[in-house]
Amino acid sequence: MTLEELIVPHRLLLGPGPSNVDPRVYKAMMSPVIGYLDPQFLRLLEETQEPLRAVFRTTNELTIPISGTGSLGMEAAIYNTVEEGDTVIVAINGFFGLRMADMARRCGATVVTVEAPWGQIVEPEQLEDALRRHPETKAVCIVHAETSTGVLQPLLPVVELAHQYGALLIVDAVTSLAGCPLEVDAWGLDVVYSATQKCLSAPPGLAPLTLGPRAMELVLKRREPCRSWYVDVTLIRQYYGQPRRYHHTPPMTMLYALREALRLILEEGLEERWRRHRRHARALWAGLEAMGLRLHVEREEHRAPPITTVCVPEGIDEAQVRNGLLERHNIEIGAGFGPLQGRVWRIGLMGYSSQPQNVLALLHGLEEELRRQGFPCPPGAGISAASRSLASGGDDA
Amino acid sequence: MTLEELIVPHRLLLGPGPSNVDPRVYKAMMSPVIGYLDPQFLRLLEETQEPLRAVFRTTNELTIPISGTGSLGMEAAIYNTVEEGDTVIVAINGFFGLRMADMARRCGATVVTVEAPWGQIVEPEQLEDALRRHPETKAVCIVHAETSTGVLQPLLPVVELAHQYGALLIVDAVTSLAGCPLEVDAWGLDVVYSATQKCLSAPPGLAPLTLGPRAMELVLKRREPCRSWYVDVTLIRQYYGQPRRYHHTPPMTMLYALREALRLILEEGLEERWRRHRRHARALWAGLEAMGLRLHVEREEHRAPPITTVCVPEGIDEAQVRNGLLERHNIEIGAGFGPLQGRVWRIGLMGYSSQPQNVLALLHGLEEELRRQGFPCPPGAGISAASRSLASGGDDA
Repeated sequence: MTLEELIVPHRLLLGPGPSNVDPRVYKAMMSPVIGYLDPQFLRLLEETQEPLRAVFRTTNELTIPISGTGSLGMEAAIYNTVEEGDTVIVAINGFFGLRMADMARRCGATVVTVEAPWGQIVEPEQLEDALRRHPETKAVCIVHAETSTGVLQPLLPVVELAHQYGALLIVDAVTSLAGCPLEVDAWGLDVVYSATQKCLSAPPGLAPLTLGPRAMELVLKRREPCRSWYVDVTLIRQYYGQPRRYHHTPPMTMLYALREALRLILEEGLEERWRRHRRHARALWAGLEAMGLRLHVEREEHRAPPITTVCVPEGIDEAQVRNGLLERHNIEIGAGFGPLQGRVWRIGLMGYSSQPQNVLALLHGLEEELRRQGFPCPPGAGISAASRSLASGGDDA
Repeated sequence: MTLEELIVPHRLLLGPGPSNVDPRVYKAMMSPVIGYLDPQFLRLLEETQEPLRAVFRTTNELTIPISGTGSLGMEAAIYNTVEEGDTVIVAINGFFGLRMADMARRCGATVVTVEAPWGQIVEPEQLEDALRRHPETKAVCIVHAETSTGVLQPLLPVVELAHQYGALLIVDAVTSLAGCPLEVDAWGLDVVYSATQKCLSAPPGLAPLTLGPRAMELVLKRREPCRSWYVDVTLIRQYYGQPRRYHHTPPMTMLYALREALRLILEEGLEERWRRHRRHARALWAGLEAMGLRLHVEREEHRAPPITTVCVPEGIDEAQVRNGLLERHNIEIGAGFGPLQGRVWRIGLMGYSSQPQNVLALLHGLEEELRRQGFPCPPGAGISAASRSLASGGDDA
């Protein structure tokens, strides 16, 4: 058996993630692997935790990258805080809410679901109703930016309700972290996790996680150990903090990548980065609408800037459009999932991928692919609307 | 807050892992991240599974890299096969046996431990005795090469016993895979996992796992779902096989690294690689003994070539020797764990690190550091014994 040289095409990644990676991040990954107890490596761990706290807007001691991808961050968030017999309310308005419910059940919890259509937020009144019916609820799980639907869930009313009923709030910030305003401490979020391959724009492989004081208190008072050994933060924190006790070998190369990605965010400024995501998303929305397409999330304030869902027009073969974009334009966008399968495309503008020229490239390619199928796009209308939006500053509009 | 440029020193990694990484692997990691459903990426996944099977010496369909480090491979192996109420026998003669027992308990299993001193194998008679007392045993867990002690456990007698009593054998091959003979199919091993940062010599971040037909049958007949969602192979196999259904975003960059590491193994030849590890380990052993040091694992056939434990002589400050090696020679070796803390050093010769010049560099540095503390090494004796061993071919001796 022989293997040929690895050849990977360069794509413009405008799907639901991963996003494109800044060349500086690739360069950082060339740094040599060293030992997990090497003083130089331990210094690097600390150096990585500080900007991670800054990006989460928190001072939480337990702010660490879990050694796996975003879904393992979800597992770490839920498995550490939930145990057998607990009641957990899960807000479900998309794919990742379903996943949170599945995980909570595997912890032995009684799961109460609160559902909304895929493309709408879960209303605080629905959650309040569930909390009133289940005052014993230990945690409320919710997705901040639903990658499957493009919905941005306002978190402040939700966290206030959860706390009013003595429950923790567990937040999926996989697609929102570093791409839209998220304030762990100011909003009082208890447990928040994310992933490296979305708006942080490092390769997938780490899941940033932060636990606030209320959550840590519950973790330390558990009746039984966490059902997962690998993500048990009572063990992991002995390595990320004192006494630096070996838990597992962390993926050094991924940590180098995360450190450089965080360094890029510090240089740009987190708030400017939020504005950049919003500015380019607004340009995209303006362009798509000018082409005659409809955005799946109707109310603009409920749209997550990093991920846009756009409706597939009647009579258009959605897979053919995606394949055409990939093959003829080298651009990846995503398909719809679950109830949105075949009904929407998902266009991501995350991290390094959120650049004005990428908005234009996407609109150009999409227009060409739609026209191939006979969709009557007004020529150049998308690009010119996007360009006007960019020129006006977009974020202030 | 600002972060300075990432500067990581280059070390000669001769500890318990990670090992040094071939420059070709670093180069492969510069390949751009692409989408997890990109046809080019799916082709690459398949291309990586085939040589992974070759390295495990198996035709098992379910042979995949779990998206986390070696300990998550352990979790995947145990959590998929073990469920609440099962009886599991765990052989414990070192740190990683303890970890397997901990994980099996978190699955709700009744754990029967069979113990041997740290530095000796677990005798088949001990296991047979436990199996006789617990004929209901579902699985026997055992470590092939114990990184904490340097012991290589002969697996054939163990797998025969396990099967005789109708139990599965779950094997930790973290340090043995690609470093010593391991024959998943020929020996009939049911579940085997490993890690990328030992004898495969890629950075840490993936855990190769293979499940044989007997294990898969049990997995598909479980009474309850796997306690971990992230490592549930009934879900993961729908992405690694058909219908290519999204499970989690795999760490592309790590897969590029693994693919190149496997390509290097195919080029070298797996059996030649086993011989290389043995040849250099024998040179190391000859050198250490000639210096007047004692190997912790007495019987040579029970020593794992990738990881050698050597006793700290009376009156020597072991940490000072390790720090001296790191600071003055840029060489990392490992300390002892648990009952071996302060009593042994752990010297790894794994993958790309297993090279003759590294054996000589280590013996040179160790001699210098020991002499600093007044240990009477006969000058040059270690290096010359190692060099004679290398000249004689080592592996045939």
